[in-house]
Amino acid sequence: MTHTLATLDTPAAIVSLPRVQHNIARMQARADALGVRLRPHVKTTKCAQVVAAQRAAGAQGITVSTLKEAEQFFAQGITDILYAVAMAQHRLPQALALRQRGCALQILTDSMEGARAIAEFGRAQGHAFDVLVEIDTDGHRSGIAPDDALLLEVAGTLHGAGMRLLGVLTHAGSSYALDDPVALAALAEQERAGCVRAAERLRAAGLPCPVVSVGSTPTALEAAALPSVTELRAGVYVFFDLVMRNVGVCRDDELALSVLTTVIGHQADKGWAIVDAGWMAMSRDRGTARQSRDYGYGQVCTVDGAPIAGYLLSGANQEHGIVSHAEGSDPAIATRFPVGTRLRIWPNHACATGAQFPAYQALAQDGSITTWERFHGW
Amino acid sequence: MTHTLATLDTPAAIVSLPRVQHNIARMQARADALGVRLRPHVKTTKCAQVVAAQRAAGAQGITVSTLKEAEQFFAQGITDILYAVAMAQHRLPQALALRQRGCALQILTDSMEGARAIAEFGRAQGHAFDVLVEIDTDGHRSGIAPDDALLLEVAGTLHGAGMRLLGVLTHAGSSYALDDPVALAALAEQERAGCVRAAERLRAAGLPCPVVSVGSTPTALEAAALPSVTELRAGVYVFFDLVMRNVGVCRDDELALSVLTTVIGHQADKGWAIVDAGWMAMSRDRGTARQSRDYGYGQVCTVDGAPIAGYLLSGANQEHGIVSHAEGSDPAIATRFPVGTRLRIWPNHACATGAQFPAYQALAQDGSITTWERFHGW
Repeated sequence: MTHTLATLDTPAAIVSLPRVQHNIARMQARADALGVRLRPHVKTTKCAQVVAAQRAAGAQGITVSTLKEAEQFFAQGITDILYAVAMAQHRLPQALALRQRGCALQILTDSMEGARAIAEFGRAQGHAFDVLVEIDTDGHRSGIAPDDALLLEVAGTLHGAGMRLLGVLTHAGSSYALDDPVALAALAEQERAGCVRAAERLRAAGLPCPVVSVGSTPTALEAAALPSVTELRAGVYVFFDLVMRNVGVCRDDELALSVLTTVIGHQADKGWAIVDAGWMAMSRDRGTARQSRDYGYGQVCTVDGAPIAGYLLSGANQEHGIVSHAEGSDPAIATRFPVGTRLRIWPNHACATGAQFPAYQALAQDGSITTWERFHGW
Repeated sequence: MTHTLATLDTPAAIVSLPRVQHNIARMQARADALGVRLRPHVKTTKCAQVVAAQRAAGAQGITVSTLKEAEQFFAQGITDILYAVAMAQHRLPQALALRQRGCALQILTDSMEGARAIAEFGRAQGHAFDVLVEIDTDGHRSGIAPDDALLLEVAGTLHGAGMRLLGVLTHAGSSYALDDPVALAALAEQERAGCVRAAERLRAAGLPCPVVSVGSTPTALEAAALPSVTELRAGVYVFFDLVMRNVGVCRDDELALSVLTTVIGHQADKGWAIVDAGWMAMSRDRGTARQSRDYGYGQVCTVDGAPIAGYLLSGANQEHGIVSHAEGSDPAIATRFPVGTRLRIWPNHACATGAQFPAYQALAQDGSITTWERFHGW
């Protein structure tokens, strides 16, 4: 059966094809203008069709957050894969098996324990892993500070053991907390400069460092220039979401993911419409709660995707969502959104919301819908 | 390959078999003592083995939150199924098909639009649906107030159209916000009395009402007595979680779900250990944030499941979690939890965390592990 927005079962994860294509073209043009390779992070979608569109537009290689993503995309013919989470020792045999099957898997570390584990396992197996060292440029999460003595120790250990030292990688994840283009451009420069500084220290020590990899969607879009950087990674730009809207790096008409839902009841005296998109559909992500504008669990839109000013998904249980007006109760909620009304909800965080669904429903300009599967788990 | 906690890939959702068995027996004994049928809500686990254990212990029928759950458990031989979310008109053909295949599916409504849709579709198909009317006993979400004139109108519409009016159902979900046994017992009585009051009104109007269904894990466990109630529904008790711990209805040694994770790095100067359980594993649920004790994204335990006082999963990105001490930075974090250390994390909300995994790893008393699949999506 061919579905439309009127016939799909709800809740459903709707992906606007024209917007995804636009977003992909926008980031690719950005990378091209900056003179760097775009290696999209596929953790946002975990979906073959989206990644194929990114590659068709010019992306070179992909970034993954789990070895399952590496396995799945390698099975789809992608060989140039960067696993951008510090390598755990117990996953080395799986990484080796992938490489022996022909996957050019790159791995990451930011500790002496990690470097030693890779070096020892690689030596024992007679295998030279391709390894990047993670750099911390914003105190956000992982990585070695660019000027830390540990950097040369880790890189030297890998190189000395015969591993292929590819270079340095950083992710300025603190960009999600900003909402000003000047501050974002400054953070992008901090991210770039810190990573380049780390690369220069490696080279000055006689160590190889062909790759300088940076990125997050906000810094990628607001960077003034990326001299000495070779590679840009970004993920959520392919869908964007309300968090990115608050950061200020996308417009409403670039929000490509929404959740289709049906009104199933009301508490009219409270101004509530009850819908069948709860947290199981939206995820529990409340990323906009800490931003300039709090959208609750999401912005309510018409079935055609137009935002309805003031109406938010203000509450969520597992399979129930509460739609209400952000500023005071709407006494006419039951006539405004009668039982059976279909709505679409823009989510806070596209990566988290997408992960709640086994598939996306890809909505073409002509209203036709194609199911695009995605995978989950590890 | 037979796995143990030392060999499983991480993150993994570990279910303690002895604790699940204990929790199932505890709630069943509770329902037996209260003289009511226990109809467990399977939305917590969506797992055949857990539900089989609940039935083996005495549960009669199940409660589901989606028709997919109904389809899956019907395929496993369960026929007595209550779909406890207000019926959407577009799902009526699927409900009818299930019933025509032999599933005694019960459906729910709390609106005239819903009642009319069921009545009209049932009549047109020559089919009498089994229908419950949802009652609002605590202003938490859905349902008709026990004394609202709408109750008789909805029930009368269903009955008049030849549908089988089964009775009334309520869920005192506001119990999750309490943490005092006296207040919980009072809410349980409010839940019971409101639902019984609605049943009495139906019967006084000459309408059938054989079923009076109440429940939530906290009210089920703290109710003093349930006279005139026929059925108790509860879900999360099978695993319990930190939210329930804060509510005060379980002990540490009843927490049956935890996430196994591996330390993959440190930011020693900040007192952080980085683990491979981020929000993709834990979910974004921060249910304890509004309670007496905030556990961040979870309580850190040893690999054997013993809580490590003061250590929480304080932050979470998609595949990275941050372990730190709740009260001040631990300068020895890197030696306390070296890279490669395995930890287990108790989650805030078992329903949300379980849903992030394609399977549970069921851990027996002897340390052996069996994979129990669960399903997701709609």
